[in-house]
Amino acid sequence: MKREEMLEKVRLAMPEKRFIHTLGVEKTAVELAKRYFESEEKASIAAILHDYAKYYDDELSRELIIREKMNPEFLDYNNAIWHAPIGAYLAEHEFGITDNEILNAIRWHTTGTENMSTLDKIIFLADYTEPGRDFPGVEEARKITAASLDKAMLFALSRTIGYLASKEQPIFPDTFSAYNHFAFSIKKEMF
Amino acid sequence: MKREEMLEKVRLAMPEKRFIHTLGVEKTAVELAKRYFESEEKASIAAILHDYAKYYDDELSRELIIREKMNPEFLDYNNAIWHAPIGAYLAEHEFGITDNEILNAIRWHTTGTENMSTLDKIIFLADYTEPGRDFPGVEEARKITAASLDKAMLFALSRTIGYLASKEQPIFPDTFSAYNHFAFSIKKEMF
Repeated sequence: MKREEMLEKVRLAMPEKRFIHTLGVEKTAVELAKRYFESEEKASIAAILHDYAKYYDDELSRELIIREKMNPEFLDYNNAIWHAPIGAYLAEHEFGITDNEILNAIRWHTTGTENMSTLDKIIFLADYTEPGRDFPGVEEARKITAASLDKAMLFALSRTIGYLASKEQPIFPDTFSAYNHFAFSIKKEMF
Repeated sequence: MKREEMLEKVRLAMPEKRFIHTLGVEKTAVELAKRYFESEEKASIAAILHDYAKYYDDELSRELIIREKMNPEFLDYNNAIWHAPIGAYLAEHEFGITDNEILNAIRWHTTGTENMSTLDKIIFLADYTEPGRDFPGVEEARKITAASLDKAMLFALSRTIGYLASKEQPIFPDTFSAYNHFAFSIKKEMF
């Protein structure tokens, strides 16, 4: 499927605002792919599809998680978490994407996970820092992302965990494993 | 071993300030035991011994963790985490405590863990709120502890996780499981 065709299908699945966000993520992801010697084409495809399941029906999502034997822990959370693994599933089954690097980057773009590839980190951080994002610390996040994907992952994950803890909300286990992974590896780097 | 004898041995293992903290934890733990229909005697013993290993040598602690086949994840952390399981070990082997409820309360008083008993929560929260504690929010923590052990656990754990995340420090896995356990159970209670 060509980029334009993919974009047309994605546009139909989300409000205009979310589509503009998607284009922002693609732009940033391609820049990061260039910067970190990753495939720009894979970055583009993963970015275009990363939020495809954001407006996918909750009931259908639950059915898919069970039928496709995805991690049952997803069922304790909601679409804010689901749309990433469901997006990876739809990327494969609706868009015919077979490249596992692209599928994984979509799958882990919201929660992160313990062992992330360069492409996984690029999509996660493009989503966090694309030009349309505006939150306290986003400029710092952009600077750190330009300097080190791992340090930027730790920056983003520590803020996500801090935010969820301040709201006393559950934290998805992979987010915690990803956080500890980067906290340990960057701590070790300092000694 | 009698209370006085136990206190004498504990006093020799720590600076005066930490001993005063220990007496504060005992006072609060016994009050909480009364309030929540738990054994006051067990609360007293667990409180007196909870920080016994706080000044135990790092090298000896490492040896014990390995030799006694404790959770090897402890080795990625330091005495701030270790002194709790090492304390449980010494309570058994130096003080002859055989009651598993007491030993577990000492073992989990710092990190928490997924399935905590009433006594576990009492010692954790007595440590967090004893009269000598002075940090922003301690008065609120005391009020919540008087009303609900589970809500107080969530209050304390969410602040601990928020603090560690803000410092980009690793978080011990049991602290995370405990946090999610209380976040889920209290969320469900609200519906």
